[in-house]
Amino acid sequence: MLRRRLTVEYDGSAYNGWQVHNNAPSVQESLEKAVERLSGRASRVRGAGRTDAGVHARGQVAVAELPAALPVEKIAEALNTRLPDDIAVVAAAPAADDFNPRRGCVRKQYSYSLSLGPIRPALGDKRSWHSKRPLDVDAMRTAASLYLGDHDFTSFCNRELAENDNRRTVERSELVELRHDGAGRRRLVYRVEGRSFLYNQVRAMVGTLFGIGTGRFAVDAIPAILAARDRAAAGESAPPWGLCLEWVLYPGENPPEDFDGLFS
Amino acid sequence: MLRRRLTVEYDGSAYNGWQVHNNAPSVQESLEKAVERLSGRASRVRGAGRTDAGVHARGQVAVAELPAALPVEKIAEALNTRLPDDIAVVAAAPAADDFNPRRGCVRKQYSYSLSLGPIRPALGDKRSWHSKRPLDVDAMRTAASLYLGDHDFTSFCNRELAENDNRRTVERSELVELRHDGAGRRRLVYRVEGRSFLYNQVRAMVGTLFGIGTGRFAVDAIPAILAARDRAAAGESAPPWGLCLEWVLYPGENPPEDFDGLFS
Repeated sequence: MLRRRLTVEYDGSAYNGWQVHNNAPSVQESLEKAVERLSGRASRVRGAGRTDAGVHARGQVAVAELPAALPVEKIAEALNTRLPDDIAVVAAAPAADDFNPRRGCVRKQYSYSLSLGPIRPALGDKRSWHSKRPLDVDAMRTAASLYLGDHDFTSFCNRELAENDNRRTVERSELVELRHDGAGRRRLVYRVEGRSFLYNQVRAMVGTLFGIGTGRFAVDAIPAILAARDRAAAGESAPPWGLCLEWVLYPGENPPEDFDGLFS
Repeated sequence: MLRRRLTVEYDGSAYNGWQVHNNAPSVQESLEKAVERLSGRASRVRGAGRTDAGVHARGQVAVAELPAALPVEKIAEALNTRLPDDIAVVAAAPAADDFNPRRGCVRKQYSYSLSLGPIRPALGDKRSWHSKRPLDVDAMRTAASLYLGDHDFTSFCNRELAENDNRRTVERSELVELRHDGAGRRRLVYRVEGRSFLYNQVRAMVGTLFGIGTGRFAVDAIPAILAARDRAAAGESAPPWGLCLEWVLYPGENPPEDFDGLFS
């Protein structure tokens, strides 16, 4: 058996998140079953990010033990025929013995898709967060940059899961307007990059940006919300279905181009 | 009660097509139930095109009887709160007493989405037809124009459903390459426009284009396939999930811009 690095795309709508749960389907379990069908042996598949229920990925990274006889260029197809339609291995590569997808990662990108307008989307409704409320997008765009840099993100982390060290560095934080779609809805994508994020951090950050868009918070509220170190100081979390883990980078790698497809 | 014209978007994945069926969910039935919940009275909702099981729409047009007291600008929201998440009324307008969405239409656009590459898509997998086979896209693009004009499309219509007059006029027939997506898949959209199409005609036309892409048919095969007036002369139909009814036009209206979102 050899350790292989897998890049995994999935539609999280039908899953209770990445991580194996009792009595609920998970992406990790589906991958482990596919690996077991292929190798004849049960083994753990570890991922770079534990995406929540309903969260999608275009470039989750995982490590798996696969038969040495299976050439690396045949792995994706061999696993895809054993995976459900809403999970696909898009790339496979050799992995060093000490490759740890979570700890080894130097940078990740998450995207969060928003759909604005009076009419909710019916196509792609599980891949963006729709809001009927008029939002001040310019204010949100300006405010997004206030997340940049090194901060204590306690205010953006679910309390019960707060870790000891809640400092994180946000290396990109940008709200991009894509275009109007056929039904006159505005499509926005928020992109955030950093080495690691706290549990629920991105959804909490998007929820606060939303609060800035509705006028609940001032355009310059983020520094004070960060300083409060209190989850109650920030807004509510945005729902999971707008979130997508776009890519995960390791030392020496370059980020891919932004994926700017519409979700409809 | 007043007749209203509705523009309807839907993800057809969960439906046995537009038309009411016994024991199978349909888009029409969902709309009729929503209208009945709103008006307290059962009535038929008629559509411009009877999309098949699994086929999507961004701009289906339908006519429904709605309470006169409900202002036209409140109809979409009132129906959307009574519709499942995968169906949305995106616009409503007054309709003349003799408005017949099917017969009155002067032009429609269907799109058919193709995804090419070794890796099947997991995001948006129910909204494009994925092929692992390398296709000659240039040949397909050239061949697409051979459908243009007035032809007998018997070769592109399911035999048992062939109508008496199988002549139809294709006013646009174009294969557009969108871009590569993150997993290196090529994304193509075929767009076809005309006043009306035979049953399964667009899927049959796409299936034959696919056959041209694989080399089963020559790049100039379409005129002879049309002349044969025999379904067996053309290729197999493309599957329903790549197809989307984009818009339906009535006299005096202008076509909307092409929707060029990616389906992933």
